[in-house]
Amino acid sequence: MNMIGALIFDVFGTLVDWRTSIAREARAHLAPLGIEVDWYGFADAWRDQYQPAMEEVRTGRMPFSKLDRLHRRNLDVVLADRGLDQVDEATRAALNLAWHRLDAWPDVAPGLLQLRTKFRLAPCSNGNISLMVDLARHNGFVWDAILGAEVAADYKPKAIVYLSAANAFDLAPEETMMVAAHSSDLAAAASAGLRTAFIARPDEFGPNTGERSASVPVDFSAASLLDLARLLQA
Amino acid sequence: MNMIGALIFDVFGTLVDWRTSIAREARAHLAPLGIEVDWYGFADAWRDQYQPAMEEVRTGRMPFSKLDRLHRRNLDVVLADRGLDQVDEATRAALNLAWHRLDAWPDVAPGLLQLRTKFRLAPCSNGNISLMVDLARHNGFVWDAILGAEVAADYKPKAIVYLSAANAFDLAPEETMMVAAHSSDLAAAASAGLRTAFIARPDEFGPNTGERSASVPVDFSAASLLDLARLLQA
Repeated sequence: MNMIGALIFDVFGTLVDWRTSIAREARAHLAPLGIEVDWYGFADAWRDQYQPAMEEVRTGRMPFSKLDRLHRRNLDVVLADRGLDQVDEATRAALNLAWHRLDAWPDVAPGLLQLRTKFRLAPCSNGNISLMVDLARHNGFVWDAILGAEVAADYKPKAIVYLSAANAFDLAPEETMMVAAHSSDLAAAASAGLRTAFIARPDEFGPNTGERSASVPVDFSAASLLDLARLLQA
Repeated sequence: MNMIGALIFDVFGTLVDWRTSIAREARAHLAPLGIEVDWYGFADAWRDQYQPAMEEVRTGRMPFSKLDRLHRRNLDVVLADRGLDQVDEATRAALNLAWHRLDAWPDVAPGLLQLRTKFRLAPCSNGNISLMVDLARHNGFVWDAILGAEVAADYKPKAIVYLSAANAFDLAPEETMMVAAHSSDLAAAASAGLRTAFIARPDEFGPNTGERSASVPVDFSAASLLDLARLLQA
């Protein structure tokens, strides 16, 4: 593992607890309008629109758009599905930026600091650059660069997203390690030639709903970023 | 100026003293081979190849390549011009990375820290992402993102480079300020609709050789990044 030069990270679920944060933000923006729904269910419904929206881009049916734009289109769908047409434009725009304010799992900021002593670090997320910038400021992440979907102009799990991140660091795929809490992300990264590290986030979709261990072969498996730093001797 | 959300920076000359650093590195790599030349002249000659090489890309005669690759081609030209064909491949490769180790002007790291309290910050350089990452680590720069030529897949002063940086931050051009020590860079940014700030680097090409003041209209003119922070009340 001495040849690894950079770690690139999945963000939603792996580094930040999107579900709790989105439920809280949805309530903060919509409850004042007299709306009462299951806020966790609302967060899940919004997230359920995530993969189908990106699939439009991956298949070429839609040109590349920043995830912010897809999130906004998806929000409109979720509101319409619930008959919440009364939600005004300003509220929709403000709520859409909730994804820029997601809270990190507690091990992430100290773990990144530790890992950064040994490796170059970047997010390799489907989130757009400004979203990553805001999450970094909100949570105290220190990155070397913001890589991922917007730089590659396509969405994971397309190989180009992982390969463009490795290339930006002047590294071969096998010198770059993808870190994620999702086996599907790691399987795609491994297919592109990258090394992989799994982080367990068992509560991602609510208590005991996330992956406790990878369902695909990985190079490392850790309980947190601090645990990963220990495994990588950073 | 309350509408400004991000500052984007020229790097070579504006933030880092490429000439002194390259002269020092050229001597460190070539003198052990028994080579003695005017090291500042060597640095100037290498830099003289910079604009013509990028022009090949800007005009579409050559596909986009990272600046590292152009720097390497230019180094080979400079060595050949001096009859220094004996310089081996490993030395050329190591010397080419001298651009990743350039020293900053002394006001830059503290100035960026100050400016970052009020604005998002990114380099908008023709240097590639890995070069910017290494300069940041070498000099203690803290960036929100690495933007510029490699993200835009074209070279300044093409408008797309400035516009893609503003767009990455979700800002309109007029909400983004280009900071540079070169009037030509600022004129191009202004033509693309950006705000501009000039930084005086009078010793860029040797004592009293750089621009002391902008030769084009700019929004701000400062003696250093700390001076700019004062002007922008950051």
